[in-house]
Amino acid sequence: MTRIVTAAVLLIGNEILSGRTKDANLNYIATELTGIGVRLLEARVVPDVPEAIIKGVNELRAAHDYLFTTGGIGPTHDDITSECVARAFGLPLIKNPRAVKLLTNHYGEANLTEARLRMAHMPEGATLIDNPISTAPGFQIRNVFVLAGVPAICRAMFDGLKGRLRTGDKVLSVTVSAHVGEGVIAKGLGELQARYLQLEIGSYPFFRQGRFGASFVLRGTDDAALKAAAEELRALIRGLGGDPIEGEPQA
Amino acid sequence: MTRIVTAAVLLIGNEILSGRTKDANLNYIATELTGIGVRLLEARVVPDVPEAIIKGVNELRAAHDYLFTTGGIGPTHDDITSECVARAFGLPLIKNPRAVKLLTNHYGEANLTEARLRMAHMPEGATLIDNPISTAPGFQIRNVFVLAGVPAICRAMFDGLKGRLRTGDKVLSVTVSAHVGEGVIAKGLGELQARYLQLEIGSYPFFRQGRFGASFVLRGTDDAALKAAAEELRALIRGLGGDPIEGEPQA
Repeated sequence: MTRIVTAAVLLIGNEILSGRTKDANLNYIATELTGIGVRLLEARVVPDVPEAIIKGVNELRAAHDYLFTTGGIGPTHDDITSECVARAFGLPLIKNPRAVKLLTNHYGEANLTEARLRMAHMPEGATLIDNPISTAPGFQIRNVFVLAGVPAICRAMFDGLKGRLRTGDKVLSVTVSAHVGEGVIAKGLGELQARYLQLEIGSYPFFRQGRFGASFVLRGTDDAALKAAAEELRALIRGLGGDPIEGEPQA
Repeated sequence: MTRIVTAAVLLIGNEILSGRTKDANLNYIATELTGIGVRLLEARVVPDVPEAIIKGVNELRAAHDYLFTTGGIGPTHDDITSECVARAFGLPLIKNPRAVKLLTNHYGEANLTEARLRMAHMPEGATLIDNPISTAPGFQIRNVFVLAGVPAICRAMFDGLKGRLRTGDKVLSVTVSAHVGEGVIAKGLGELQARYLQLEIGSYPFFRQGRFGASFVLRGTDDAALKAAAEELRALIRGLGGDPIEGEPQA
C-alpha cells in the first residue's frame, strides 16, 4: 500500500499577479515537500482581496492534507492573511499571548507600535511557527500553515515546521536525457508508460548549445519498477541512434 | 468609468509541482498583461491529471475575461492539455487542417510521425496561435488561449496573440522606497490608503546591504490621485526622518 499525503500552496499578493515580483517560494516548498514524501498537488496565486483569500484557503484546506500560505502577515494595512484565515475557519482573531511576548522582547515596549502588534493577531488556537530571521512568527491552525512572503523568512519558517508534518511514501525519480526529437521517441515512450502504469513518465524538451533534445523523468514509489523502466528507456534511446545521458544535460 | 478586463493563468505540469522546474512563464505573462491594461487576478498550477486540468479551465474561464494556459501541448503521451480543453468545452477534438499543413511543411511528409501529428489536435473551432520558434502552434478557443510551456515559445506565442485582446484602462504605478521600518510607517500608510480608496497601496519589505527598508507601491488608473498620494507618501517618509528613494532601491 502506498501512503499518500497531499498538499497545496496558496501564494497571496498583488505583487506576483502584477508582475512586480517573481515568486521564489513555490519552487522551494515544492522541492522540500517532494524530498520528505508529501505530494504538492496544486498551487494558486491570489490577490490581497479577502474573498479571494478566504475562498482559496477553504477550497485548498478541504481538498488536501496540508495547505501552506505565503505572504500578507506583516504589519501594514495590506497584510490581511491572518484575519482572512481566521474568517475562513470561522474563528475569532485574537492577540496570541506567546506572539505578543516574542514581539515585546524583540522590539521593546516603547517600539512595539500598534502596527507591529498586528503581527501577533492570529486565529484562536493557532500554534506558532518560528521566525529565526525577524522574530514575527508564522502560525499553524489545524492543517493550514501560514508563512511569510519574504523568501528567506518563508524558507526558514518552512524548515522549522517540516518536522510537524505527517509524511507518505517518497516519490523517487530517475532522469535520463538524450538528443532525440520528442516526436521520434514519443511512440516508444508512450508504450513504456503503458507498461509501467505505477510510474509517471514526463518528457521535457530542451534546446541547448544549438541542439534539441529532451529530458525524460520517471517518477514513482516503486524503486524496482523505476530501475527497470529506466533501463528500458535507455535501450529505447539507443535503438533510435541516441546516447542516453544520465540526469539533465549540462547547461 | 474604469474599463476593467480580467484574466487568469493556468500552469499545467507535474514538473512545477515536484520542484523539478521553476516556472518562468507566469511573471512574463503577468508583466505583459499589466502593460496592456488586462488585470491578472488569479493563477493556478495543476498536475498532468485530466480532472484537475478540466476543473481549472472551466472555473477560470467562467470567472475571467481571458484564460491563458501553459504547457502540455507537445507530442508525447503526457501532453494532454488540448484534449482536456476540448473536454472542458464539450467540443470534439479534431485534426485542425491549418495546423496539419504547418506541421507537414515543417517536418515533411516522411517525418510527420503520428506523435507529431498529435500537435495538430485541437478543439473544433480553434484558431491558431503562431509559434515562430518550432512551428507547432498554440490555439485560441473562445476566451481561452493555449500556449506552450517552454518559456521561449510561450513568450513568442503570447507576443503574437496580444493584439487579439480587448484591453481595459491601464493600471499605473508609482514606487517609492525608504529605509524605514514597516512597523513605523504602517499607521501613516494605512491612513494614506484610507484617504485614497481608488488606489491600492502595497508595502514590500526588503533587506539589502545590511539595511532594512520597504518599497511602497501605489497602483491605480487615476493618474492625478496617484501623483498626489505619492507626494503625500514622500512627505510621510521625510516626517519619519527617512529619505524617499524613487523606485526600487539599488540592489
